Amino acid sequence: MSRKWISVLLLLQLSCYFSSGRGGKVLVWPMDYSHWINIKTILDELIQRGHEVTVLKPSAYVLLDPNKSAIKFETFPLSISRDDYEKYITESIMSYVFEMGNYSFWKYYSVLQELSWLDSDFFENICRDAVLNKTLVTKLKESRFDVILADALCPCGRPTKLTELMGKADMWLIRTYWDVDFPRPLLPNVDFIGGLHCRPAKPLPKEIEDFVQSSGEEGVVVFSLGSMVSKVTEERTNVIALALAQLPQKVLWRFDGKKPDTLGPNTQLYKWIPQNDLLGHPKTKAFITHGGTNGIYEAIYHGIPMVGLPLFAEQADNIIRMVAKGAAVRLDLITMSSADLLAAVKTVINDPLYKENAMRLSRIHHDQPTKPLDRAVFWVEFVMRHKGARHLRAAAHNLTWFQYHSLDVICFLLACVAIAMFIIIKGCLFCYQKFTTAGEKNKRD
Amino acid sequence: MSRKWISVLLLLQLSCYFSSGRGGKVLVWPMDYSHWINIKTILDELIQRGHEVTVLKPSAYVLLDPNKSAIKFETFPLSISRDDYEKYITESIMSYVFEMGNYSFWKYYSVLQELSWLDSDFFENICRDAVLNKTLVTKLKESRFDVILADALCPCGRPTKLTELMGKADMWLIRTYWDVDFPRPLLPNVDFIGGLHCRPAKPLPKEIEDFVQSSGEEGVVVFSLGSMVSKVTEERTNVIALALAQLPQKVLWRFDGKKPDTLGPNTQLYKWIPQNDLLGHPKTKAFITHGGTNGIYEAIYHGIPMVGLPLFAEQADNIIRMVAKGAAVRLDLITMSSADLLAAVKTVINDPLYKENAMRLSRIHHDQPTKPLDRAVFWVEFVMRHKGARHLRAAAHNLTWFQYHSLDVICFLLACVAIAMFIIIKGCLFCYQKFTTAGEKNKRD
Repeated sequence: MSRKWISVLLLLQLSCYFSSGRGGKVLVWPMDYSHWINIKTILDELIQRGHEVTVLKPSAYVLLDPNKSAIKFETFPLSISRDDYEKYITESIMSYVFEMGNYSFWKYYSVLQELSWLDSDFFENICRDAVLNKTLVTKLKESRFDVILADALCPCGRPTKLTELMGKADMWLIRTYWDVDFPRPLLPNVDFIGGLHCRPAKPLPKEIEDFVQSSGEEGVVVFSLGSMVSKVTEERTNVIALALAQLPQKVLWRFDGKKPDTLGPNTQLYKWIPQNDLLGHPKTKAFITHGGTNGIYEAIYHGIPMVGLPLFAEQADNIIRMVAKGAAVRLDLITMSSADLLAAVKTVINDPLYKENAMRLSRIHHDQPTKPLDRAVFWVEFVMRHKGARHLRAAAHNLTWFQYHSLDVICFLLACVAIAMFIIIKGCLFCYQKFTTAGEKNKRD
Repeated sequence: MSRKWISVLLLLQLSCYFSSGRGGKVLVWPMDYSHWINIKTILDELIQRGHEVTVLKPSAYVLLDPNKSAIKFETFPLSISRDDYEKYITESIMSYVFEMGNYSFWKYYSVLQELSWLDSDFFENICRDAVLNKTLVTKLKESRFDVILADALCPCGRPTKLTELMGKADMWLIRTYWDVDFPRPLLPNVDFIGGLHCRPAKPLPKEIEDFVQSSGEEGVVVFSLGSMVSKVTEERTNVIALALAQLPQKVLWRFDGKKPDTLGPNTQLYKWIPQNDLLGHPKTKAFITHGGTNGIYEAIYHGIPMVGLPLFAEQADNIIRMVAKGAAVRLDLITMSSADLLAAVKTVINDPLYKENAMRLSRIHHDQPTKPLDRAVFWVEFVMRHKGARHLRAAAHNLTWFQYHSLDVICFLLACVAIAMFIIIKGCLFCYQKFTTAGEKNKRD
């Protein structure tokens, strides 16, 4: 499934109490990890505005934490344990990142297909555990929700097609905007809410602020490979650390593994960093990133140039876009040398064009008629208020594929032409026959 | 040119003082009559926000009145007089409305083509009077405007095509929204600002308010054929008046001609009516309209069902959409009888579905993330702030037609296949020849 549709999907439930004046009831089918960060931002805002939010939480999900939020969690047991779930996710990502790179072109795509089927089965099983749980389904039915907010990465409905899914949703909220994406035609029930989780930077924890301030005029570089990959192989770690050690900047590296031998005194390792606040710090000069959509948007929000080391999913797409827009340099984590990484970081810091382009994207991002989060919440509430958004739904969704391509019309017209030609030819033949018969008769007479 | 593009177009001028902190300088290439109503709404708002607005006014234009506004008018003389201009417009419309209806299908389209060429020449001459006026052009160049806001109905730049025009504009503002229009794919530099001129109703002038109040429980019907047609033929006038006379409602009819013999005591004629305020009056039950975009939007804004008598241009399209959405009944002004009109008005008033549908469209219209006027002004200012809106412009505009349809790629691939097949066939023939020659040689040996 392409990056364009790693998105948020709204579906309508018919029972609607919302019009009676109180807040609406929102049911959420979430995804784990970085996707949850976006959805949670919307849900927190919905709760602020008086709506009741219930999240269907598969018991093994990692980032969905019931204790830290006013969100109601409806946890259901899975047939796999949390350990097995985390193991599958980690191993799956590790094969995408570290094994796939070694394959030939054809092998790559056949293995990709295989991994995609595995992933699909994995999430289908999670879905089964929900829909075959009778107690859960009865409880949900009785709750009479006004709207379903679903992450469309793993749709969960029986085998389906992207077109069918698109036709059934009232509204699509996409996790990008025209700062990252390139213009293309869209239907009116698609809105772009990329960067909705970004905020002005908050003050850093004292220890981190002290380290950042110690960088002096040179400033700092922030380095993270996202919430799903915090460690890489020892050999790669040393290559990276060696490059970072040669930078005049101080480096904050989000890393959860054995301290590399080549680590320089300018580099500090952290198991977790306040990434958005760091990227918004005036001393931050560059961001080394795997290119996940959330990180990319935090960098754009604060106008920070990037070095991209894409790993899997939409990351390569994102980085290619940032390179095309002149705000990033791209490297391959598996094949790059220390010198490559050092040169790339120096380029984005020292060539003023990268900062200028990052700032241009930032200006575009901040200059929208309404903020992305406000629009996301608006459309959730709109679907509740109007029991859908039918006026934004293209009638093409109701057509079969041969109607959509006007094949029925073309066939009818071709049939008309064929019949007309048949009649004309038959007519000519008849006249010709009549004429020759009459001629022969005349001759005989 | 189809209704979709009877729209407002923004173009960029490169000199930009706007970023220096003061208001921007906006140059406007307007259209007369109903189009001016929309543009003027945007211009008044731009002036409110501190921008300097200059309108290029062809001397003969009717609705552009320099005395009533803070807008600066740069009037230039035309080679035709105001009388000739008005005569041409009136006669052109009269032929669209009253002559075209009598023609056969084929005749209709050939005359339509002829009239379109005449109109095109007419507006091209107005354009020539502007661009060949050296004093005017020098003055405009020296003024260094930040943006051009142009009505794209009559583009004025040399012979051009719609695709070329679309590619050159930074932003397109369309005079409709999804209340009137049906969803279709759009590029991100297109925004829909239909109804931007609508306002909550103001109190009516005393004489009109007294007449409206005298209608009692039955309420009133508002009837107007727009700013360009205030009179129709005497025969049609009598047919209309006879129908209106039989309504239990009072009728306010905007009409500028001889009082019809069949006029009922319930019907009052007015040379001008405060249409938006009347449609927003709680006693108004229905609107008989020619289906111009502005009137349609005032009816939608206030949730009033319609009877449509479309005359020319986009009006038939608008009414067809209102009929499809269940908020109007359509009649043909030329062929309808008094009974038809009476039945139509009674239907939209007495069948509650029409009011319900009009109210549904009204709710959709009012429920947008931002108001249409705010968005229009936002995009004008955006183009000034960023010297364009390049990030919203599809790269497809840079392609030639054969690149756009991937014909170059297809040709290359076909050539590859052809060369490969040629080599394979030649190879096979060569092997076959070798084999048979060897066979014959063996036989000879």
